[in-house]
Amino acid sequence: MTSCLSVDPPDIEAILTLNPQIKPYASIVPSAQTKKNKKHWKRNADKKCGTCGPDLTKNFDDIKHTTLSERAALKEASRCLEVRRRALPKVVPHPAGCQGVHHQHCKQEEGPINIGGLQQFAVEVFKKMRLSQVLPPEVATAADQRPPSYSARVALLGCGPASISCATFLGRLGYTDVTIFEKNEYIGGLSSSEIPQYRLPYDVVDFEVELMKDLGVKVVTGKALAENDLTVKGLQAEGYEAIFLGIGLPQPKKVPIFENLTESMGFFTSKDFLPKVAAGSKAGMCSCKSQLPQLSGNVIVLGAGDTAFDCATSALRCGARRVYVVFRKGFTNIRAVPEEMELAREEQCEFVPFMEPSKVIVRDNRITAVEFCRTEQDDSGRWVTDNEQTNRIRADFVISAFGSGLSDPGVQAAMAPVRLDRWGLPEVNPDTMATSEEGVFAGGDLAGVAETTVESVNDGKTAAWSIHQYLQSLHGIPIPAQPRLPKFYTAVDAVDLSVDICGLRFPNPFGLASAPPTTSAPMLRRSFEAGWGFNVTKTFSLNKDLVTNVSPRIVRGTTSGHTYGPGQGSFLNIELISEKTCEYWCRSITELKRDFKEQVLIASIMCSYNEEDWTELAQKAEAAGADALELNLSCPHGMGERGMGLACGQDPELVRNICKWVRAAVKIPFFAKLTPNVTHIVDIAKAAKEGNADGVTATNTVSGLMMLKSNAVAWPAVGSDLKTTYGGVSGNAIRPIALRAVSAIARALPGFPILATGGIDSAEAGLQFLHAGASALQVCSAVQNQDFTLIDDFCTGLRALLYLSTLPSTADWDGQSAPTPKHQLGKPVPAISEIIGKGLANFGPYRAERDRVLAEKHRSADLLDGKAEPQRPAVKPAAPVPTIGELIGKALPMIGAYNDLDNQQHKVALVDEDMCINCGKCYMVCNDSGYQAIEFDRRTHLPRVTTDCTGCTLCVSVCPIIDCIKMVPRTTPYVPKRGLPLPA
Amino acid sequence: MTSCLSVDPPDIEAILTLNPQIKPYASIVPSAQTKKNKKHWKRNADKKCGTCGPDLTKNFDDIKHTTLSERAALKEASRCLEVRRRALPKVVPHPAGCQGVHHQHCKQEEGPINIGGLQQFAVEVFKKMRLSQVLPPEVATAADQRPPSYSARVALLGCGPASISCATFLGRLGYTDVTIFEKNEYIGGLSSSEIPQYRLPYDVVDFEVELMKDLGVKVVTGKALAENDLTVKGLQAEGYEAIFLGIGLPQPKKVPIFENLTESMGFFTSKDFLPKVAAGSKAGMCSCKSQLPQLSGNVIVLGAGDTAFDCATSALRCGARRVYVVFRKGFTNIRAVPEEMELAREEQCEFVPFMEPSKVIVRDNRITAVEFCRTEQDDSGRWVTDNEQTNRIRADFVISAFGSGLSDPGVQAAMAPVRLDRWGLPEVNPDTMATSEEGVFAGGDLAGVAETTVESVNDGKTAAWSIHQYLQSLHGIPIPAQPRLPKFYTAVDAVDLSVDICGLRFPNPFGLASAPPTTSAPMLRRSFEAGWGFNVTKTFSLNKDLVTNVSPRIVRGTTSGHTYGPGQGSFLNIELISEKTCEYWCRSITELKRDFKEQVLIASIMCSYNEEDWTELAQKAEAAGADALELNLSCPHGMGERGMGLACGQDPELVRNICKWVRAAVKIPFFAKLTPNVTHIVDIAKAAKEGNADGVTATNTVSGLMMLKSNAVAWPAVGSDLKTTYGGVSGNAIRPIALRAVSAIARALPGFPILATGGIDSAEAGLQFLHAGASALQVCSAVQNQDFTLIDDFCTGLRALLYLSTLPSTADWDGQSAPTPKHQLGKPVPAISEIIGKGLANFGPYRAERDRVLAEKHRSADLLDGKAEPQRPAVKPAAPVPTIGELIGKALPMIGAYNDLDNQQHKVALVDEDMCINCGKCYMVCNDSGYQAIEFDRRTHLPRVTTDCTGCTLCVSVCPIIDCIKMVPRTTPYVPKRGLPLPA
Repeated sequence: MTSCLSVDPPDIEAILTLNPQIKPYASIVPSAQTKKNKKHWKRNADKKCGTCGPDLTKNFDDIKHTTLSERAALKEASRCLEVRRRALPKVVPHPAGCQGVHHQHCKQEEGPINIGGLQQFAVEVFKKMRLSQVLPPEVATAADQRPPSYSARVALLGCGPASISCATFLGRLGYTDVTIFEKNEYIGGLSSSEIPQYRLPYDVVDFEVELMKDLGVKVVTGKALAENDLTVKGLQAEGYEAIFLGIGLPQPKKVPIFENLTESMGFFTSKDFLPKVAAGSKAGMCSCKSQLPQLSGNVIVLGAGDTAFDCATSALRCGARRVYVVFRKGFTNIRAVPEEMELAREEQCEFVPFMEPSKVIVRDNRITAVEFCRTEQDDSGRWVTDNEQTNRIRADFVISAFGSGLSDPGVQAAMAPVRLDRWGLPEVNPDTMATSEEGVFAGGDLAGVAETTVESVNDGKTAAWSIHQYLQSLHGIPIPAQPRLPKFYTAVDAVDLSVDICGLRFPNPFGLASAPPTTSAPMLRRSFEAGWGFNVTKTFSLNKDLVTNVSPRIVRGTTSGHTYGPGQGSFLNIELISEKTCEYWCRSITELKRDFKEQVLIASIMCSYNEEDWTELAQKAEAAGADALELNLSCPHGMGERGMGLACGQDPELVRNICKWVRAAVKIPFFAKLTPNVTHIVDIAKAAKEGNADGVTATNTVSGLMMLKSNAVAWPAVGSDLKTTYGGVSGNAIRPIALRAVSAIARALPGFPILATGGIDSAEAGLQFLHAGASALQVCSAVQNQDFTLIDDFCTGLRALLYLSTLPSTADWDGQSAPTPKHQLGKPVPAISEIIGKGLANFGPYRAERDRVLAEKHRSADLLDGKAEPQRPAVKPAAPVPTIGELIGKALPMIGAYNDLDNQQHKVALVDEDMCINCGKCYMVCNDSGYQAIEFDRRTHLPRVTTDCTGCTLCVSVCPIIDCIKMVPRTTPYVPKRGLPLPA
Repeated sequence: MTSCLSVDPPDIEAILTLNPQIKPYASIVPSAQTKKNKKHWKRNADKKCGTCGPDLTKNFDDIKHTTLSERAALKEASRCLEVRRRALPKVVPHPAGCQGVHHQHCKQEEGPINIGGLQQFAVEVFKKMRLSQVLPPEVATAADQRPPSYSARVALLGCGPASISCATFLGRLGYTDVTIFEKNEYIGGLSSSEIPQYRLPYDVVDFEVELMKDLGVKVVTGKALAENDLTVKGLQAEGYEAIFLGIGLPQPKKVPIFENLTESMGFFTSKDFLPKVAAGSKAGMCSCKSQLPQLSGNVIVLGAGDTAFDCATSALRCGARRVYVVFRKGFTNIRAVPEEMELAREEQCEFVPFMEPSKVIVRDNRITAVEFCRTEQDDSGRWVTDNEQTNRIRADFVISAFGSGLSDPGVQAAMAPVRLDRWGLPEVNPDTMATSEEGVFAGGDLAGVAETTVESVNDGKTAAWSIHQYLQSLHGIPIPAQPRLPKFYTAVDAVDLSVDICGLRFPNPFGLASAPPTTSAPMLRRSFEAGWGFNVTKTFSLNKDLVTNVSPRIVRGTTSGHTYGPGQGSFLNIELISEKTCEYWCRSITELKRDFKEQVLIASIMCSYNEEDWTELAQKAEAAGADALELNLSCPHGMGERGMGLACGQDPELVRNICKWVRAAVKIPFFAKLTPNVTHIVDIAKAAKEGNADGVTATNTVSGLMMLKSNAVAWPAVGSDLKTTYGGVSGNAIRPIALRAVSAIARALPGFPILATGGIDSAEAGLQFLHAGASALQVCSAVQNQDFTLIDDFCTGLRALLYLSTLPSTADWDGQSAPTPKHQLGKPVPAISEIIGKGLANFGPYRAERDRVLAEKHRSADLLDGKAEPQRPAVKPAAPVPTIGELIGKALPMIGAYNDLDNQQHKVALVDEDMCINCGKCYMVCNDSGYQAIEFDRRTHLPRVTTDCTGCTLCVSVCPIIDCIKMVPRTTPYVPKRGLPLPA
């Protein structure tokens, strides 16, 4: 058999041994054997071993569950019913603060969206763009005429989340003399000093502060709110017209039993411990060369808030062997977010509830144990401590994390004359963040409402508007009652998206196609208000051709698998043209053009093949004031049977004549809307040009039958006899067809304007059509999936794409997507083969070895050595930002005939072992749809591409990890395997 | 303005107030206000309230996190790199056992797949089909000739998971005298008595037992392994040749301090408590009318295994006010699966670690508290108990869940002469499950290896093979060394899928298309071995036309969004025809036909427009032994420039002539493969028929340009000048085009065979093409996404579709999909409006009200009243199962011209408030792409369809919940809104 052509040679058979096979019988693996096997393929730690956790010493790598890779971020965002993809973060400042927040209101069936992870991903990408914040356009424009009230001096105390937020908004509002005073030598407040690096890296905080400074906000370090330093009265005396108190709660809560304990004895409060951990692990935070606290043995952390769990996981990184988190109430009362506790649990911290510490046992000046009393909730819900029941837990170190307060009388005195409450904190109006003293505001922990970083940031934002109101009222300047806090702006927002087509100026290239979103004139009005650059009316006809629709008529696509909800990759419709009269549309056009002069309104019209009708209708639309016309020569259903729509558009002769008629009838530009349901669309476009059309719209929907249920009834089916007809397929599924049509027409008719439509669901898709030769972009299905506000994402996205294309720092990006870093689950991984000379899989013993190698690397690393990349100065364009006009047709020189392709310059696949998740998809596809050119290691599950690779690229196409497989140039000549030699 | 046409009237404006809008400014909501607002929209319980958990009294509804709705199941399955969709469960028995298992090895970037949920969903659907298990075909066929060894008497002790599994496999192997003896009056063992209803409903267990009984296995209840009842020796004496001990561990572990405690004092062991809970909550389990145990006040559960958490959550349902789970070691040592503990945590159970019970305090014959000693792990890892440190926890009830054992000497004696180990359990060979006594086997908890239900099931399976080996060896019959345990079979597996086309018999209608999966002859061989009904070779040519490919050439689609990995909705390729010689293919065809006579091999050939070439190549292929030919007249790239492929296929004249030439050259049937890239595909098909082709293949790929990167370079781009050309789009994205082509040709040319291709990715998709008029089904992209084993799913799926179409019980199903029950997150919900007269949203105060209503309903319910639907007799077909031939073209009478549709029979949308997740998508799409005909309640987020609904169906198309919106007949005449009246 082995000499047979149809039998694999032994080397290929060896490769195929692990390929999936249909087993005719049930397999048997005794449970005892499976238990042994599990050790090899497990991806998680052994539950039975309490002391087998990985060595975390000095390991400050990201541990958040929420962290997402690019692929995971795209998938997660696509799950969401509302979140849009890839939008720049318009809600900064303090994106870091958002990383812990979940979308409580999320209604998704498969569980809440990982909003925190999405925000983290977006911020990371945005950070890498190295853009600076700029003043909002209306503020920047008015800079010269700004009244002196905007030069008022504003002081903010404490450079933490609340102040950074407050100062940022004041900067955006146009205030020019805003200063934050910070007592420490580092900035960021609690975000820097108390949130560990593995949850919030320092460079994210630094990034936010730099964005704030971009607006002119000054930061002065080493200056504290204190009786002998800065005081409210002193600042007022120095001319500060508004003061914001954002110092947080600087002192740990006092607990008598810890009174005389010191660090040398093994005692820390969280307020001492976490800043030391931060200083020893956050490169760039301060110039000091700090060491991590040196812990060992048993560590007891007291408390059950987020801080307690941060202390617990930090302690492991400082050398603790075992960490107990001990708290006074039960698990149901834990204040920390569940994710924080879960991280500690995974790192094998222990939890002990219902314990109140009563005594710390010290021997030879070292802590040896803590004694606790049991607590209990009585039937009335009150918590009682039973001093009779005591427990002792051995401990070498104790970290108390009982929260913080403001107990320093010097600070309290410095706040005078601000009225304080019984806890010594300023009395604050929660709606305005104003204190009892005019012009003095407070926010964050100090103000008593905020419990999270997000809420502190929100306090600062709220206070910013109050300060604005206050300062302007001081100067007698009225401001709107409704807050108008500016959003975040960068140079990207200034990019011009306008494009001139046939003498018409489109403010941006995105418009609504003639389709359900333009069913009525009020919808067009709302679309213009939302910012769409142009609108094409739903197609209307002369009244004699008025139609009545059937129902149902617009159904979801089946082209993206079992997708329900928004995010449909296609729709099919059997909807006809507008049901409304010609008079309705003409009067509406007149009204709309009266109110929206800067935007373009195109009237879509349809008649049967009849010169008189086309002349009459075109002239009516022109008379109504339409900027241009679109001739619907392509509706794929219903109208064709009346000799309209596609019945006209499939014949070049008819198209040419209709265009000639319309050309003779009107002066305004017009576009022939083409059907893709033809053999040669270019011939139809040529006919339109010959008929003196000003351009074409490419393309209408593709004729199709979307689906049949299992009983052979189509969806949609109409009436009791369940009949259907072929409908028009729209959306992403037809994008390749539309891209082909647009580029083919553009290649054949250079300079002939094309309005593209067919799967434009994002700025990226729009850019592809521009590059393929389109001048403007029509949208329907994406709006059906979402709503009119999409235009905001589309414009911001396209501006970003244009701007980034000019930055030297993003030259290797694909649009808004940075080159994929070596990662697993979105978290960076080192090139393990560079450390140990071989790749390692990500499970079982290989994972364990990987962990050992990395633990060793961490132990010997100098944590403060790695300099973070400087974030400023922001990167500037190396060339002028291109106009839309300059993009049009950029791809055309690279699109050609098959024979233009060089079949000598081949590529082969290369797998990145560090990114590989060992799933074997590349191996399977190469076996059953390719060339059996990938070996798959039976034990390690690492794939290896052999010299048989022909570069077909299917492995890349089905690899689940972006950029894990790359196509690299082939180094040897490509010699096709002919199977049998050519006969002589 | 309000008289303007383009401005919404006030009623529509009122509707639009909640529609998304682009906000020009950042919004301000003070944190204090947000905290208040949160109470309204929260979907989860208030963390700060330890006693606000929902009232769970008598609530035994499913609480598993893993439970999936149909949509969620489809989405989850699509995430998996290996799991296929909708396959019938081929690995039963004991699907229930799988429900808790996770896919440990799963390599998915977004976290492991919820395999347990998928299995549960599949089992639920399968259960509803009410099919019975049948003997495997090879066993059934051999029933008459079976040797007496198969009549050996086999006894299994204990009707739990291990015995059910063992008996099932023995039944499948053909054993006819297998009896399970169970001491209780109910069956299922621990699955029935100790796993609560809300984790494993009784009807699932019953279902498995019925499937086992279908094979002839007998179950005798009320008979126990005991000295005075059944004994090993006694059974042997009665002639039982093999005995399986699967009685589990019947006794609770003895703990001296509980020695004299009784239920009336408030003490239970888990072995007492859980069976009582089961008996009181599982309808149908036994005929007894049991009450739930009546608990109240504080309940202490001792232990940290799965059973302990089951006791804890059960206790809440029996009236406990507060539950403490107290355990000896730490959290890192908890044996229970994390999900179990998480459920208890969510229901507000408390956890107390490091406590060993030392004394139970009893007063007036009632338990009042338990005293504990603290435990600690010393530095060597040993656990020590400190009797000095004691704690007391008040308790009204104590449930000890310290595991179980076998301590009953009567049972131990009954096992004689089986050798027992030092724990009193049988010594078992873990590879064979054999005990020391010949012919006696054991499995499950009793055998000491299994720790989970899944492992017990596996023990039974392993033992079944050992018993088979043993029994056959007793009779001197050799059996294979390699285990051959039959898989699960039903009547579905017997459905005939064969179809006759042009005199050729196809064993099933699925074949590989001429494409990358048929690149080489060994791949065809493997495809036939896997079971594909036919294969079409990669297209070959005469040697003078030999090609050489470029690289890269096959890329992933972009039509389904940012999808990476398998599951691509489309691919684009610029691959040419085969690089191999004509001789290679001809010799390979000869070889393959020698070895695969039952399957069909079609040679795909291509020449330029030249009679001599077509004659020569067709005759060569015929001579080689091909069953049929496919003429490739449609390759969309590369070949056209040589005057081949689509260059021939777009012109009816050329197609007609080529077919005539081939007809003249060969006797075997041939099919013309058509391109969809034409205006009128039916004309091309007619030309092929006129040329005497035996049929057509419809369709080849659709010409397209898949994507451009942001720098305008296409993917794929070839060589250093990065050139591309238009390629062929394949996969689901083109299915609507292919379905249209197939049905249009079938309508025009009745009876003319069509081989369909284009997006056939499942049995369901295949059935659609058959209904549309295809006779056989070609597959490529689906194999590129997966592998050759797909054929197994396709055939099983199609068999199921055919079989289910005949069952009266599934008449209202859509294929394998049952009607959607009212549910939230896949868990059934009652029609709340039927209880309280109005709908309620699923968040905030509405959710709370819903919970209250349901708690009240539970409290007053008779749990044992609801009779489970009987599972047997299994449902039988009401008509003969259709043949493939009978399905062909079934949809055609319902597909017609638009004018055939009745525009008077309209539908309108109706929202199911109980299923609604209040997301507002229907509202948004109706506003911006529809008719502003859905009101959205500002507070409750419940949508309501107004009389303005025109039945467009877009709301259904974007609703994320399957069947939450239905289109129902319109009751009033449809009067289109013409905008302005027609001029008189």
